[in-house]
Amino acid sequence: MDKKEELVKLLINKKYTISFAESCTGGKMAAAIVDVADASKVLNASFVTYANEAKIKYAGVLPETLEKYGAVSEETAGEMAKGTAKANGAQVAVGISGIAGPTGGTKEKPVGTVCFGYFMEGRLWTETVVFPDRGRNIVRDMSVEHVMDVLINELKK
Amino acid sequence: MDKKEELVKLLINKKYTISFAESCTGGKMAAAIVDVADASKVLNASFVTYANEAKIKYAGVLPETLEKYGAVSEETAGEMAKGTAKANGAQVAVGISGIAGPTGGTKEKPVGTVCFGYFMEGRLWTETVVFPDRGRNIVRDMSVEHVMDVLINELKK
Repeated sequence: MDKKEELVKLLINKKYTISFAESCTGGKMAAAIVDVADASKVLNASFVTYANEAKIKYAGVLPETLEKYGAVSEETAGEMAKGTAKANGAQVAVGISGIAGPTGGTKEKPVGTVCFGYFMEGRLWTETVVFPDRGRNIVRDMSVEHVMDVLINELKK
Repeated sequence: MDKKEELVKLLINKKYTISFAESCTGGKMAAAIVDVADASKVLNASFVTYANEAKIKYAGVLPETLEKYGAVSEETAGEMAKGTAKANGAQVAVGISGIAGPTGGTKEKPVGTVCFGYFMEGRLWTETVVFPDRGRNIVRDMSVEHVMDVLINELKK
């Protein structure tokens, strides 16, 4: 059983649905779930919120949060997760916002910086991971793998 | 220049934005656009509308359409495209709803049947393609390739 199948199975066992607000991953996270034949049991709706306006409109991010902390911040990723869970009635939601490159990096937030917000059963936590800059699509794939690892680990507890 | 880059370049040249309502492709279509570094110029928001309720809530599909024609129908795919363009202010939108398998096929709509709705500059058209059933993820990848071919062809006209 691969990682995607394991995650979907764990969600089914808990009767959870999952939803995402994806910025840099751009739909890859939802697609990973839909790769599994049983996806309809755990995923109803998911967002690609690439522009700031989409993060506000669909994922419920506050404009003030974007202005104060920026799109790539734990504050924004956390609000993306919480807002998406609420919008789609999901027990589990993840917000992903990062700098996949090749441009957009700064000294403080280099290319490869990805902020994650996780919402699970009313609990919210966030983290920042700086992946090695091996190219735009590698950073995005590593982000998807990372989210699956984190969720599988949490759901197994 | 690969197909994704060509599509993004054509959209940029026309100053168009694009948005999707994805059912069976589950985010793969948006992810293909975000694969390209210039994605932020053409994609603001996109939906994965896997459940019928999501097709209604985000893509503006009428409940009557789903009831009368089913989720996998040109009528539904067309409404998905039109509603998504409207919701996200996009000049180009595509609705994708199909039976990727392994289950869900019928005699009338076998596994591999995918309905597409295309909205471009106020013009709407739909089509049904029956891809060979070479497995769930092959059907989904072929759907993404197909949409890129259709859009590139139209945008070049």
